[in-house]
Amino acid sequence: MSNVELDDELLDPEVDPPHLFPKEIPHNEKLLSLKYESLDYDNSENQLFLEEERRINHTPVAAGSGIPQIKCFLNGVKIPHVVRLKTLVIKVSGVILSVVGGLAVGKEGPMIHSGSVIAAGISQGRSTSLKRDFKIFEYFRRDTEKRDFVSAGAAAGVSAAFGAPVGGVLFSLEEGASFWNQFLTWRIFFASMVSTFTLNFVLSIYHGNVWDLSSPGLINFGRFDSEKMAYTIHEIPVFIAMGVVGGILGAVFNALNYWLTMFRIRYIHRPCLQVIEAMLVAAVTATVAFVLIYSSRDCQPLQGNSMSYPLQLFCADGEYNSMAAAFFNTPEKSVVSLFHDPPGSYNPMTLGLFTLVYFFLACWTYGLTVSAGVFIPSLLIGAAWGRLFGISLSYLTGAAIWADPGKYALMGAAAQLGGIVRMTLSLTVIMMEATSNVTYGFPIMLVLMTAKIVGDVFIEGLYDMHIQLQSVPFLHWEAPVTSHSLTAREVMSTPVTCLRRREKVGVIVDVLSSMASNHNGFPVVEHTDDTQPARLQGLILRSQLIVLLKHKVFVERSHMGLAQRRLRLKDFRDAYPRFPPIQSIHVSQDERECTMDLSEFMNPSPYTVPQEASLPRVFKLFRALGLRHLVVVDNRNQVVGLVTRKDLARYRLGKGGLEELSLAQT
Amino acid sequence: MSNVELDDELLDPEVDPPHLFPKEIPHNEKLLSLKYESLDYDNSENQLFLEEERRINHTPVAAGSGIPQIKCFLNGVKIPHVVRLKTLVIKVSGVILSVVGGLAVGKEGPMIHSGSVIAAGISQGRSTSLKRDFKIFEYFRRDTEKRDFVSAGAAAGVSAAFGAPVGGVLFSLEEGASFWNQFLTWRIFFASMVSTFTLNFVLSIYHGNVWDLSSPGLINFGRFDSEKMAYTIHEIPVFIAMGVVGGILGAVFNALNYWLTMFRIRYIHRPCLQVIEAMLVAAVTATVAFVLIYSSRDCQPLQGNSMSYPLQLFCADGEYNSMAAAFFNTPEKSVVSLFHDPPGSYNPMTLGLFTLVYFFLACWTYGLTVSAGVFIPSLLIGAAWGRLFGISLSYLTGAAIWADPGKYALMGAAAQLGGIVRMTLSLTVIMMEATSNVTYGFPIMLVLMTAKIVGDVFIEGLYDMHIQLQSVPFLHWEAPVTSHSLTAREVMSTPVTCLRRREKVGVIVDVLSSMASNHNGFPVVEHTDDTQPARLQGLILRSQLIVLLKHKVFVERSHMGLAQRRLRLKDFRDAYPRFPPIQSIHVSQDERECTMDLSEFMNPSPYTVPQEASLPRVFKLFRALGLRHLVVVDNRNQVVGLVTRKDLARYRLGKGGLEELSLAQT
Repeated sequence: MSNVELDDELLDPEVDPPHLFPKEIPHNEKLLSLKYESLDYDNSENQLFLEEERRINHTPVAAGSGIPQIKCFLNGVKIPHVVRLKTLVIKVSGVILSVVGGLAVGKEGPMIHSGSVIAAGISQGRSTSLKRDFKIFEYFRRDTEKRDFVSAGAAAGVSAAFGAPVGGVLFSLEEGASFWNQFLTWRIFFASMVSTFTLNFVLSIYHGNVWDLSSPGLINFGRFDSEKMAYTIHEIPVFIAMGVVGGILGAVFNALNYWLTMFRIRYIHRPCLQVIEAMLVAAVTATVAFVLIYSSRDCQPLQGNSMSYPLQLFCADGEYNSMAAAFFNTPEKSVVSLFHDPPGSYNPMTLGLFTLVYFFLACWTYGLTVSAGVFIPSLLIGAAWGRLFGISLSYLTGAAIWADPGKYALMGAAAQLGGIVRMTLSLTVIMMEATSNVTYGFPIMLVLMTAKIVGDVFIEGLYDMHIQLQSVPFLHWEAPVTSHSLTAREVMSTPVTCLRRREKVGVIVDVLSSMASNHNGFPVVEHTDDTQPARLQGLILRSQLIVLLKHKVFVERSHMGLAQRRLRLKDFRDAYPRFPPIQSIHVSQDERECTMDLSEFMNPSPYTVPQEASLPRVFKLFRALGLRHLVVVDNRNQVVGLVTRKDLARYRLGKGGLEELSLAQT
Repeated sequence: MSNVELDDELLDPEVDPPHLFPKEIPHNEKLLSLKYESLDYDNSENQLFLEEERRINHTPVAAGSGIPQIKCFLNGVKIPHVVRLKTLVIKVSGVILSVVGGLAVGKEGPMIHSGSVIAAGISQGRSTSLKRDFKIFEYFRRDTEKRDFVSAGAAAGVSAAFGAPVGGVLFSLEEGASFWNQFLTWRIFFASMVSTFTLNFVLSIYHGNVWDLSSPGLINFGRFDSEKMAYTIHEIPVFIAMGVVGGILGAVFNALNYWLTMFRIRYIHRPCLQVIEAMLVAAVTATVAFVLIYSSRDCQPLQGNSMSYPLQLFCADGEYNSMAAAFFNTPEKSVVSLFHDPPGSYNPMTLGLFTLVYFFLACWTYGLTVSAGVFIPSLLIGAAWGRLFGISLSYLTGAAIWADPGKYALMGAAAQLGGIVRMTLSLTVIMMEATSNVTYGFPIMLVLMTAKIVGDVFIEGLYDMHIQLQSVPFLHWEAPVTSHSLTAREVMSTPVTCLRRREKVGVIVDVLSSMASNHNGFPVVEHTDDTQPARLQGLILRSQLIVLLKHKVFVERSHMGLAQRRLRLKDFRDAYPRFPPIQSIHVSQDERECTMDLSEFMNPSPYTVPQEASLPRVFKLFRALGLRHLVVVDNRNQVVGLVTRKDLARYRLGKGGLEELSLAQT
């Protein structure tokens, strides 16, 4: 195998391999132990124990909305099992149960996650859960390609959920993608398009209108008739005010959820406790909803088919309970009803109570170990207070014609969601596409931007907050602003375990087995006499060494004229992404004395930085190229250290200047 | 001035300074001479002559749509005068005259260019044309910041032209931006938003409806009532067929324009010839239009206010000439009329003739040395054949209700424009926003994607084609696929002029004055004895050296205790972007003997690659970081070469494998 044949990406994959962040990240309980007990990983029994425990604790990665996990995956952090078939199955059944069970959750986040899993699966042409390999798409068996598929899957998920193909692409770019280029956009766009079309077609058949393609998305917020409902310049300040309210409420939501998550990490980390908490939330949700509906006296006349199952309760015949309309429908239906029901359908008291209660319920529910999205609950909270806002405005201005409560419900929904997740561009387009209305694009944009600016003053967005809480080495777009004074020398890991061009098999096995050097990339240095300092020659990955060991590519064996099959690129691809651990490879005592020639397989020109390079410069290189290892050299090209993702992700701008974070250990 | 104070970007600007691509690029006639006469730049008289000639030839950069120029600017190629106030004035008056004069041109490209110029001007807080410095925004006086502003300006231009704020952002990302990050998107989005709002407000006042904000864009394609005009699944193949037609017609358009541009570069390179050609085109356009209108017998009954100035000609009273409706309106009005006039408003014969004639006129006009966009003419051609297509379809299917000619006119317009410029995502959103219709989003997307795929089989998009014709060292997203066999050693420029840490002023002046070493960055090497090879220490830019020379920052002067003002970052910023040429700096014979200490000012950790690095790897580094110079070192960290933008842009995948292009020389 020549160097030319070896692909650059393969040599220098941009995503961490599975074993770099073994199994802790999605487990809150593991994080706890990692953070507060500082597990000693030199103890391999301990590691096996963790392995064991993980197996009991089935696919916890299926909990939550999945968006933070996908975001991390696309940033280059591999979260185990995040794109497994098993996760998909659990996620899908989980979200069906949580939505049906009446929790304050949505199904959009899980749909996005599901889209990603399906994309990842298709791209690999095999399923490890099913133990089937279809022998197709082998070209895609590497991290960069898989990542692009996952981006496209996420976009397809949004696209299907909201009938928003362009919104899906933008979601994937704004919220997901950490790397971006034109071809990627193209592919994502194509995936979104196919997704929308397929869903539309299937739903149209389901609804009995086979040919008319009238069902663009699963969730349709109903068409806003822009002819009737325009906006005037007087309303601009009102929209900005709503954005401010949305930003503040979003920040409150995030802050409460932050404390709650901290509490959960600390105290609710046993599966049984998690189940009990979920049951408790479900019970409280049902009870509170029932009490509110029961005690509500907000009766409204039935108006045709605005609801499928109106609840009469204590209302007169021909009337329905409007609190039940908000609580007993699926959240999506409630949102539509808040957007489109004619003025007067809701009592302000009902809306106020509903907002208050649903706000806390949604906040409590998010972060529970159930599959659950936060999109729709946020929209519902926002729609409720937005409508209330509209009604109040209408009272204040003497029922002016422009103060339509539906319009304010829409703006409130945008403001609340924007305040929680802090998306702007993609959310604008999603709302435009989901309401089939372009006219409100500008006010929605304004509201979302205000909500983001106001919210950012207080606390990060919900997804970023959860990523930070999970201590994932997530690399943001830019290095912290005050980090100019740090240089590569200060951030790098040192000393580095280097290998020589021709290295003894025994040394390699020892290095790979050693828990102290659990790096995934090893600089290869020049094999000269010991008086000269060793110069950097290349970089070789743990996974490559393992494949080489497995195939016993030793110099002696080729010298001895043994018919040795030449190692091909395919051997590396087939092993992807689960390279066997070093323990599973048997190396005899004789073989330990053999040598391996790494020069054929190593990456001969790894990216390097001089040790004086500033942190922002190192960060930029790392981030722009999606690196995993960056070799730090002195001015004689001798290896002095290695910068890994975690060396960089550690630094963050806190309140007291630059802070060092404790990240999940490996 | 400490190193910390010096910004990374300042040390390593990502855009070529003005003197790298002196003055040839926008001059087709200059390109000719550069290509075919291989001007000898060692002759400085010759250069002055060119300078002279340029002054006569006023702002030729204002010609054309400006989009290719902006695209180059954002890619990091500095095209002189592209963001000057003078260019703006010429462009705006030029486009008014060309549109009013009845040429087959649009005003959208120029509007986008104008937006960029205004943004660049605002960001710098000064105007060199007006010789005013407002002393504001000095922070933005560097290439990276200015580039971000230019992106935002382009987006604001689209936003104002089509009333499409989201479309504007996407245009800027898809077509313009070569570098992308989340913050940039944010800023661009904000600019678009403000632009739309301002335009809407001003137009609303102009139209007398001060408060209702009902005029989202300059060009409004009219609202498609999606209730009435949906699409069914039967039409999907029809749309795809239209996309194919659009792709083919777009490729024909581009191919014809390519030959025409080659002809122009070769033969029409004197200003007087250019003026004569423009006059000829104008005369032919007017004549052909008049002949067609005159000979047309397509009379249609007047239907209310569909046209402001219907032309009766030989028609009976109460009728108008429909060929005149297509030709005598502004192109924008004609597009709207083709989209929305009821079925039967146009005779198929009229449409066919119009398409044919307008196609050739538009093709001839684009590339003329007048300010002119290609957006609207493309839409008009497409709308005409799309409507014809719809009418034929209606005949074929027996006037089926779904075969509305307006809908097909819209799809045809999208197909034709997509086939010419090859945008997908942004164009979809622009069309959605400009027609206030989300329902047609999916078919438009489908048509655009088909058009792009089909068109790409034959020839590049129009803008890329013009960029290539101008031999600009434009870096695409990826290295050519077959370039793996090339290494840094083969592409780099060598030998490199290096400077020492402490260098004689005389040497520096000689290096800067020498025409042979017209690089803009110089590696700084270690100042040891001559037996040891010199090791790379840093990189210093020509512009920095000139500022240092200008302020006479010599070691001797500080030793002599002269009260020397310390050089601050501001001195570099103030000089930006027009650093004086070396000839303008007087250095006395005594001063030539002084030394300069470069270590304080150089970039101490320039990006480097080993000489074995493959071209794709070098390309990726260059492209991802937006570099201008990349130092190639051997494994002892000694400088062996320098890779510049042009070394990389030279390689392109042609029909016979990897090709080396001849680029504009410097």
